[in-house]
Amino acid sequence: MTSDEILALLRGGFERWDESGVTIEQSGYRSCRLRLAFHDRQLRAGGTINGPTMFMLADTALYVAVLSSVGPKALAVTTNMSINFLRKPAPKDMIAECRLLKLGKRLAVGEVFIYSDGEEAEAVAHATGAYAVPA
Amino acid sequence: MTSDEILALLRGGFERWDESGVTIEQSGYRSCRLRLAFHDRQLRAGGTINGPTMFMLADTALYVAVLSSVGPKALAVTTNMSINFLRKPAPKDMIAECRLLKLGKRLAVGEVFIYSDGEEAEAVAHATGAYAVPA
Amino acid sequence: MTSDEILALLRGGFERWDESGVTIEQSGYRSCRLRLAFHDRQLRAGGTINGPTMFMLADTALYVAVLSSVGPKALAVTTNMSINFLRKPAPKDMIAECRLLKLGKRLAVGEVFIYSDGEEAEAVAHATGAYAVPA
Amino acid sequence: MTSDEILALLRGGFERWDESGVTIEQSGYRSCRLRLAFHDRQLRAGGTINGPTMFMLADTALYVAVLSSVGPKALAVTTNMSINFLRKPAPKDMIAECRLLKLGKRLAVGEVFIYSDGEEAEAVAHATGAYAVPA
Repeated sequence: MTSDEILALLRGGFERWDESGVTIEQSGYRSCRLRLAFHDRQLRAGGTINGPTMFMLADTALYVAVLSSVGPKALAVTTNMSINFLRKPAPKDMIAECRLLKLGKRLAVGEVFIYSDGEEAEAVAHATGAYAVPA
Repeated sequence: MTSDEILALLRGGFERWDESGVTIEQSGYRSCRLRLAFHDRQLRAGGTINGPTMFMLADTALYVAVLSSVGPKALAVTTNMSINFLRKPAPKDMIAECRLLKLGKRLAVGEVFIYSDGEEAEAVAHATGAYAVPA
Repeated sequence: MTSDEILALLRGGFERWDESGVTIEQSGYRSCRLRLAFHDRQLRAGGTINGPTMFMLADTALYVAVLSSVGPKALAVTTNMSINFLRKPAPKDMIAECRLLKLGKRLAVGEVFIYSDGEEAEAVAHATGAYAVPA
Repeated sequence: MTSDEILALLRGGFERWDESGVTIEQSGYRSCRLRLAFHDRQLRAGGTINGPTMFMLADTALYVAVLSSVGPKALAVTTNMSINFLRKPAPKDMIAECRLLKLGKRLAVGEVFIYSDGEEAEAVAHATGAYAVPA
């Protein structure tokens, strides 16, 4: 699937997709790169971006990489995700770089690095997750 | 901290807390029970509640259990969270039951079971997470 | 499968099973309890039991709980395991208590608490894992 | 610390280190590369290498990368490890490539790719882990 086809599928499946702030910067076989626009509602005590926002971005990146690789399987579901929060992200856009480590018929596994925009030397979070792919 | 004190701290730290839909049903030493009110925006393709919503609920439950046990440390931060999605949750309220497995001076570790309201025989998700507690 | 049938299968699949020090204290539908006999080779710097030994015990407990529930599927394989090390275990036997949180046709997910023998108030480790069950 | 200094520390802390089959191929600031010699005792049902062996290799790689970066802290301990098993490893040597994603004063977080020797296009396992570093 192309980025535009994936976007259409996301808009169909998630009513409020356009409020999410996520855009697809690149997608291809077993990988993608997303951007999340900063918004005040992502902040937590201490002035940094909260964990659930980073989880959402990582989860979306895995979903996009799976769709991009196997086609329109809207019902693919995360079965497991493990995320390490490494640094407190500044209040700015975040970038997710996702790569699938395994793409089986029923299970895909990938990793996602999350960076603050323009600071790609040190990730703010790293996640690995598994997706069950329907037949 | 009592549930009311924790609630005041959450409202102070998270501007949009009251939009979150989370209420504290019980909190005590090393444990808590939260409820998340169902809202359409939690839905994903397939008509079930999306993963990031469950992550947010699990993360909040760990935070509440930590605050309830160690006092007002608003800057306690999640360092790691691993979540397994077990069943597709029906579009209704969800309950989080959290218990801390370790409460050290610098690190707390806990587990969270997430249930659909009224269906506590089988969890819809299970998470374990670690919180760094500031001195 | 009964504990004796599981033991026979483990001996068939793992040449050196009897050197492992693991015994099945209880097994049933979606649960089991194992014991690991202490041995000097399990020690690490600091005089406590090393992490890989606890991982092995947790992994074996999930395998036994799966076999006990679905029958002789020797080729069931772990797809994911997340383990938190909570306390430094004393040099003595360890007990693993395992419970399956989900038992699907293709995927089982469970949690394991590991205790030092006789000290079951506080776990020394906690693991969650997923097993792929062959058809 | 150099690879030789790390090896001396490992031999001091783990009585049976030389039986482990692990050698340090490279170590440096925030990274290392280890080799695990194949041995029959690593096999499981199905003729592939068992999970606990891969966990041990990943855990050792994180420990070596931490020692290599912060000096002789023999009592550094793993607090959390999450491992995904991606492919069934052939009965041959395995290589672990480790990189630290965060090196804080008290906490180090890293990832490890495990490959079958000579087949580095697709990893057989991937782990992320956190190490508590003593003061």
